[in-house]
Amino acid sequence: MLRVAVVGASGYIGGELLRLLLGHPRVTVTVATSGRHAGKRVDGPHPNLRGTTDLTFLDPGRLAAAKDQYDVLFLATPHKETMGRMPEYLSLADQVIDLSGDFRLRDPQVYERHYGVPHTAPELIPGFATGLPEWHRKEIRGSDRISVPGCMATAGVLALRPLSEAGLIHGEVQVDARTGSSGSGVSAGSANLHAERSGAMRIFAPNSHRHQAEITQATGLPVRMTATGVEAVRGVQVLCRVSLTDGADERAVRRAYREAYADEPFVRVVAQKRGLYRLPEPKILSGSNYCDVGFDIDEESRTALVVGALDNLVKGGSGNAVQCLNVRHGWPERLGLEFTGLHPN
Amino acid sequence: MLRVAVVGASGYIGGELLRLLLGHPRVTVTVATSGRHAGKRVDGPHPNLRGTTDLTFLDPGRLAAAKDQYDVLFLATPHKETMGRMPEYLSLADQVIDLSGDFRLRDPQVYERHYGVPHTAPELIPGFATGLPEWHRKEIRGSDRISVPGCMATAGVLALRPLSEAGLIHGEVQVDARTGSSGSGVSAGSANLHAERSGAMRIFAPNSHRHQAEITQATGLPVRMTATGVEAVRGVQVLCRVSLTDGADERAVRRAYREAYADEPFVRVVAQKRGLYRLPEPKILSGSNYCDVGFDIDEESRTALVVGALDNLVKGGSGNAVQCLNVRHGWPERLGLEFTGLHPN
Amino acid sequence: MLRVAVVGASGYIGGELLRLLLGHPRVTVTVATSGRHAGKRVDGPHPNLRGTTDLTFLDPGRLAAAKDQYDVLFLATPHKETMGRMPEYLSLADQVIDLSGDFRLRDPQVYERHYGVPHTAPELIPGFATGLPEWHRKEIRGSDRISVPGCMATAGVLALRPLSEAGLIHGEVQVDARTGSSGSGVSAGSANLHAERSGAMRIFAPNSHRHQAEITQATGLPVRMTATGVEAVRGVQVLCRVSLTDGADERAVRRAYREAYADEPFVRVVAQKRGLYRLPEPKILSGSNYCDVGFDIDEESRTALVVGALDNLVKGGSGNAVQCLNVRHGWPERLGLEFTGLHPN
Amino acid sequence: MLRVAVVGASGYIGGELLRLLLGHPRVTVTVATSGRHAGKRVDGPHPNLRGTTDLTFLDPGRLAAAKDQYDVLFLATPHKETMGRMPEYLSLADQVIDLSGDFRLRDPQVYERHYGVPHTAPELIPGFATGLPEWHRKEIRGSDRISVPGCMATAGVLALRPLSEAGLIHGEVQVDARTGSSGSGVSAGSANLHAERSGAMRIFAPNSHRHQAEITQATGLPVRMTATGVEAVRGVQVLCRVSLTDGADERAVRRAYREAYADEPFVRVVAQKRGLYRLPEPKILSGSNYCDVGFDIDEESRTALVVGALDNLVKGGSGNAVQCLNVRHGWPERLGLEFTGLHPN
Repeated sequence: MLRVAVVGASGYIGGELLRLLLGHPRVTVTVATSGRHAGKRVDGPHPNLRGTTDLTFLDPGRLAAAKDQYDVLFLATPHKETMGRMPEYLSLADQVIDLSGDFRLRDPQVYERHYGVPHTAPELIPGFATGLPEWHRKEIRGSDRISVPGCMATAGVLALRPLSEAGLIHGEVQVDARTGSSGSGVSAGSANLHAERSGAMRIFAPNSHRHQAEITQATGLPVRMTATGVEAVRGVQVLCRVSLTDGADERAVRRAYREAYADEPFVRVVAQKRGLYRLPEPKILSGSNYCDVGFDIDEESRTALVVGALDNLVKGGSGNAVQCLNVRHGWPERLGLEFTGLHPN
Repeated sequence: MLRVAVVGASGYIGGELLRLLLGHPRVTVTVATSGRHAGKRVDGPHPNLRGTTDLTFLDPGRLAAAKDQYDVLFLATPHKETMGRMPEYLSLADQVIDLSGDFRLRDPQVYERHYGVPHTAPELIPGFATGLPEWHRKEIRGSDRISVPGCMATAGVLALRPLSEAGLIHGEVQVDARTGSSGSGVSAGSANLHAERSGAMRIFAPNSHRHQAEITQATGLPVRMTATGVEAVRGVQVLCRVSLTDGADERAVRRAYREAYADEPFVRVVAQKRGLYRLPEPKILSGSNYCDVGFDIDEESRTALVVGALDNLVKGGSGNAVQCLNVRHGWPERLGLEFTGLHPN
Repeated sequence: MLRVAVVGASGYIGGELLRLLLGHPRVTVTVATSGRHAGKRVDGPHPNLRGTTDLTFLDPGRLAAAKDQYDVLFLATPHKETMGRMPEYLSLADQVIDLSGDFRLRDPQVYERHYGVPHTAPELIPGFATGLPEWHRKEIRGSDRISVPGCMATAGVLALRPLSEAGLIHGEVQVDARTGSSGSGVSAGSANLHAERSGAMRIFAPNSHRHQAEITQATGLPVRMTATGVEAVRGVQVLCRVSLTDGADERAVRRAYREAYADEPFVRVVAQKRGLYRLPEPKILSGSNYCDVGFDIDEESRTALVVGALDNLVKGGSGNAVQCLNVRHGWPERLGLEFTGLHPN
Repeated sequence: MLRVAVVGASGYIGGELLRLLLGHPRVTVTVATSGRHAGKRVDGPHPNLRGTTDLTFLDPGRLAAAKDQYDVLFLATPHKETMGRMPEYLSLADQVIDLSGDFRLRDPQVYERHYGVPHTAPELIPGFATGLPEWHRKEIRGSDRISVPGCMATAGVLALRPLSEAGLIHGEVQVDARTGSSGSGVSAGSANLHAERSGAMRIFAPNSHRHQAEITQATGLPVRMTATGVEAVRGVQVLCRVSLTDGADERAVRRAYREAYADEPFVRVVAQKRGLYRLPEPKILSGSNYCDVGFDIDEESRTALVVGALDNLVKGGSGNAVQCLNVRHGWPERLGLEFTGLHPN
């Protein structure tokens, strides 16, 4: 059994890592840190884990002292804070899988523009593989440092990249992203108060969102992104308006997706002519590691609406991280990630 | 125009007072206090008031200095804090309408049992009229001190009292109360985080709730109350299981309600044999000052389910307070409270 | 008192017309038709109207026989059906205010393209004024035939037109529209089943929606529109990505809105730098006749996100129709439309 | 591999059976019937199954002809219809697991009282084991005919029976049941329209619900049940007010639960003094086979609030049926039912 530690385990991403790793047949979770909950049971903040584990939280200050208890570190730690501690994390474990935003962007200047602070460990960036198996499987297999992409970025990249790689789209991409409330984490600011957030259509990033830099990095396309919080706890859906190149018709688009994803366990192409669920919708993806991608072509304007949907805490974070672990260790990629999602839900 | 001040005007009850009083044809709101938002526009925390008012919040420390600007004080201030300041409030204005819980219970010992602290101004309690016009209209007309009942209590009392007065019910009443999230106010604890509160069925008071003491006080019946937070922003619904006395049949029950409420502008009897909305439901009451009451008799067990529903911020608080103001001043009771509620909603 | 009839009064738009007209101080509702509910009380399908009216539904086949009972006809009748009956409707009343889609588009060929059937009464189209007071007040004042725009179109036109008129934007507009479930009406197809629709992000019109033709007609700009059903009962929000012309900066945009809407009772410009409600959000507009419009400029790309939000049943339909009635009769435009909306909600 | 057929596979219970059985390591689903969808893919009405199966629906009229393709029949067929066809079903397969209500009640007269029609196959009732492993494991092991209890009944029985068996409670039980919308199935009546059902607190059974007869049958206690639809897609929560016998204190109650459920894989006792999830809540149970049970004692009144919560489609139906299959075949009971539920959700 591979022994893993989850750092920052009391948040939503941390809780989801625990859920998946506790159910993983080749993994044992030995350490879960939380400053606020140190010494308390993990099934307190994560009541769905009742009956699954007796684990208690370790104070993060004791992570180093516990270093002989784990082989892999999962970091569910805040952006901006993680980079400063990365040298220590790297010294503690054989492998580090980082879910913060700090090592996603290759260019420290792009990082600074989107996160508002200079990158303090730029020399470490190149050592991280991009934790998106569909496009970086080989890299992940050979790397002990993996940086998992952002939730909206994952949906956008998986939806767009087959088309950009195949040369079927060009020019700027307009991305309209919608997200549930769990993406904001457990920090209880008034913006996340139920009475304020319920039924909201809150445009929290009208003209730019940091995940757009990740999409540009992955696809080479300029991206203009808008992000709105809508009524849901889990779920991200990105709508991308793209211009088609000559010859980019439905067959070509389907072929591009098929070539990219035919053997992928967690990407489904959903692009039907009719039906309630004809295009990707996060509602049926909660808890699953699927990213559904789809499209609808407008012949008249030679544009397409390209859509990606996922559970932000699973394929948009923790599930994707576990998939990376599976890839890294040469295990079947579905291991621990078999849940198919619910309907109705 | 009557000049009113709202103390504690940045919370949800305060905001609703502002909405109703700003729209009231015989009232002008001259002062709205808030410590946290002092100097800022009231339409910041209350964005629905944009275009309606240019009022800014006054620091509560300056309420006394502004005493010549208002005739009536509405108190949307916290339980336990209000009683200590009441002597001052009473010295500042001709009339005080208190929406806190501090002067609802006639017996200071009952207060202490339910609020966990001794009452610090018990001598003031008898001076307050109970702000429930349906049962205390005369008292309200003659009083300059009015204490508005709790939201669940209002629903319970309006549903039960016609039956208790008519001698149609006896014994202990089981009350199952459900409430939306706005009842918890703007304080952003993790219990009210959208991701935690959304879709919840949270039993926050399994065996006792302070509003039960108000129901007992008003009906003379012992009450056992359970309270659950369900998915809604506004809305309270109370289900009361009561034992019927001999001769209490449907006709008698209908008659009791009719006699109590036939001329009431804000109580509707909803007790139909079929239809989606055959019994009181808060969903269609948001924003309105109605309390719908209804019942369904079980002949076999000689019990009835008696139901009350209202918008906790309106008839369960601010709207009821405005109705009291109308009563006190001899104005038509519907003044400023004409909104009928929305369907669908 | 003006006597009005509502045709198609059992649906959601019809119910909202009844709510507003029954509360209107210069109107009396004398007729409300419904085939399915003929003879029954209007407060059956519209339970929020309990206590407000004793009106019963008239069979629509008896509308002509009742013609001496009303002066104005409001048509909340289905698209495609309405045009065939329009000659009769016009013969029955002095004034006809049509809420169907049949007389919105000036060009019958555009109608045919978007509604899928040829227009059967094209000769009547020019006789209808466009029922959007903000842009057609004079026309409405002089006309006895008014066609009220579509809900998404209203939000889009009110948000975009000041900018197109001022020459501040050019080129194609990308519109991302989100809508609540009430827009689908009371027809209970499986798409609108709660278990399917709850929490949905359903792209029901990926590349074209008929309301885009109305926006193009009003602004002269080509429009590409996507429409998604999100979790809400009421509410439409449209996000428009526009390209700015030279010199179109924040000041110019604000000026354009101010010039267009400074005196408008139902349009608020909501474009703040911070705050939860810094941009238009339908959540706080339920039941109100406001359309909030706002924008956020991206200097780098010389584009702006322009946003409109409204309650699809009020400013997006029934409320707007009542405002047109007020304009037509020279009454204060706020009459019967004073409700400000709720927060929280 | 055991070959199973699901009859009535296009509904919500049928879809959930497919989800669980397709993921079961010792089962292969060979037949899924649906009249309306015959010949079409099962992942049409059940979009969460995309990528999991290529199965198509069989016309139910061809079930007999396909009898050599399955060993076990799962019946997700309507109440009242199922009993008439049961003789045929029993002739087709070695084992029949029935999820309809027709064979739950032992006494045909009780059936008639609650279902409104006489039972047409009363002679078959005694042959069915009650499909609640926690209380009928031995019976299930030895039976080829299993009748799975109703969703609310399962929650109520699991919560109450340890206490009734231990003699800790007596007298009538007041049950307040709340349920999500998926319990109403895919039939799209107006009661289940999103705009009507969203945010509802709809008392659809004020004084009696057929599941109360099942609870009485299982516990020997008279039950008075009220049922309300609240905002949720999945989830049932039952609150039971019970009178405690002498000596029934917290320790005794905990001991009764422990003795009943210490080794049960799918029952968790949730009865904490504090915390958001201190009592059973369905919100975190979606998709899982857990039934959480808990209690809170009121010493003063010598009553307790006893609570059960589950996912109506899983432990309240399909999951429970799969657990019965596991019991019947001597397999580990968790097989195919490992999903722990999500938080937040």
